[in-house]
Amino acid sequence: MDSVKELGERKIIELILECLDQMPHMPLPFGDDASAVDLGADKLAVINMDMLVGKTDVPRTMSLWQAARKAAVMNISDLAAKGAQPLAILASIGVPPNITKADIQQIGKGLNAGAREYNAYILGGDTNEASDLVISCMALGVCKEDQLIKRSGAEPGDYVAVTGFFGKTAAGLKILMNGLSASDDRGELVDSVLMPKAKVKEGIALAQSKAATASIDSSDGLAWSIHEISRASNVGFLIDELPVAPEAERFAEIHGFDSAELALYGGEEYELVVTIKPGLWQEAKTAVEKVGGSLIKIGLVTKDRQLLLRTDKKTVSIEARGWEHFKTA
Amino acid sequence: MDSVKELGERKIIELILECLDQMPHMPLPFGDDASAVDLGADKLAVINMDMLVGKTDVPRTMSLWQAARKAAVMNISDLAAKGAQPLAILASIGVPPNITKADIQQIGKGLNAGAREYNAYILGGDTNEASDLVISCMALGVCKEDQLIKRSGAEPGDYVAVTGFFGKTAAGLKILMNGLSASDDRGELVDSVLMPKAKVKEGIALAQSKAATASIDSSDGLAWSIHEISRASNVGFLIDELPVAPEAERFAEIHGFDSAELALYGGEEYELVVTIKPGLWQEAKTAVEKVGGSLIKIGLVTKDRQLLLRTDKKTVSIEARGWEHFKTA
Repeated sequence: MDSVKELGERKIIELILECLDQMPHMPLPFGDDASAVDLGADKLAVINMDMLVGKTDVPRTMSLWQAARKAAVMNISDLAAKGAQPLAILASIGVPPNITKADIQQIGKGLNAGAREYNAYILGGDTNEASDLVISCMALGVCKEDQLIKRSGAEPGDYVAVTGFFGKTAAGLKILMNGLSASDDRGELVDSVLMPKAKVKEGIALAQSKAATASIDSSDGLAWSIHEISRASNVGFLIDELPVAPEAERFAEIHGFDSAELALYGGEEYELVVTIKPGLWQEAKTAVEKVGGSLIKIGLVTKDRQLLLRTDKKTVSIEARGWEHFKTA
Repeated sequence: MDSVKELGERKIIELILECLDQMPHMPLPFGDDASAVDLGADKLAVINMDMLVGKTDVPRTMSLWQAARKAAVMNISDLAAKGAQPLAILASIGVPPNITKADIQQIGKGLNAGAREYNAYILGGDTNEASDLVISCMALGVCKEDQLIKRSGAEPGDYVAVTGFFGKTAAGLKILMNGLSASDDRGELVDSVLMPKAKVKEGIALAQSKAATASIDSSDGLAWSIHEISRASNVGFLIDELPVAPEAERFAEIHGFDSAELALYGGEEYELVVTIKPGLWQEAKTAVEKVGGSLIKIGLVTKDRQLLLRTDKKTVSIEARGWEHFKTA
């Protein structure tokens, strides 16, 4: 019999989706960053749910406050990718028997911090005894129907852009998990793992600009994000300016890693990866900069369903792999 | 240091609530059955989240299909108690390593069945590796702002009513967990545990009738539900017709149990416990019967903050205890 280890997370989700009746007129298809419900009057409720499991998602050096904050932020990030304003968060907490009163307070404060950073509130939830620490959050946001950004709208010729540089979390995880050194960049790299930021203002600015044709949050890594837009939009990608963070570049140099590998196949990053109508590029960039963010062009959407990375020296394929839990193969 | 076993579920929730900033103009206060967000135009989003943990919430004889269905139904029930129509459900699943493909399909089908019974749809979710099976669902519903039924509106003189009879789940759990016998009622009693039903039509009918002043779902037991309305509304209760299910009555007789104990202090039941304006009693009853349900008067709301049960022989206190996970004391 196939066990979970052999199936992997994505196959499990696929198996479950096959069992579900599909809601008529779903504003977002199964498998997008979030789900949406038509509320009438041009308004959508955008909802998302993501579980943080102590054993697999929380490095030992991450405090409970940081873990709880992250549980809120990672849910908010998925709403951000759809252009929705997060309003409310619920948290369902599985509590291991050895947890203390002080621990619970750290979790409460961390959840609150994660929500308030993005103008949302924790409205409730529940707790249960569990073997692992489990913090399962859901986020509710709203957006106008015509401003929702799916994964499926990318067109050949669109620009590909990101809201920040990549590779820091891959480096940060190597520092935290394997004890690698990083000289002056240590704080910045470790922080990218312990204190992830959602790009809410950027997502909403892009939605309002109506320049974005597709969007995803990069929590499964840059390569996987591109792969997902490619699959949903039936397009290809030519990336010619890989957005490697300078800190990740220096870290790669110290340890002899390939910095492109860190940037492409990391994960647990919460940047937005978007495609932009070329004629509205300046509007999109200005809109994002106006709210204090940045929009970095990294390539083009192509007709051919290949994912390519072009550097000065050569053109290589970007593999469709990324951050996936509990798959061994 | 205080551990979770000493704290108990309700104290943990209290500790977390103390850490949270409160959203201005919350339509439902912290600690009600669900949470609500004002969407404008007289519309509220009502959301709820509840986690089912294999180890503590799933009797060994409950199938994965039943467990997953229950995870959906218990979330829907909380929306029902507020008078909201459930629309969408998300499910976040913690999967133990030994689970198989067939198991996953049972979970998918069970979730779908639970949602579809109440005209809602499963829209998405995620999966993670975990030590226990954990099915954390959230439900989203909508209702008109002036039809939301809180726990806090009960007034002295209101009638107390329920949508069904009590005691079957307490008996069913004793059959499933301790192997007790039950002759002809076995199927009905066991079914009440394995196949709980949410009272959605009843909740919406009551909301539309505008006759209900307070409402709660009885998942923590009848006594605890009354206690919660008492606390939220600052009123007391005089119960003079305890709604004991005939099957529970017969089960109690066979084994020498107190049937009132089974009815009051069970739990995992999903009836609605409501208070009704006396002048609108007939309207409320007719509205619920019109949708195929029943509304059973069991007592009165009183001014004095006592919870009393009056029988032919005597009047006794109803204790503020009920279904609470992992509290040892």
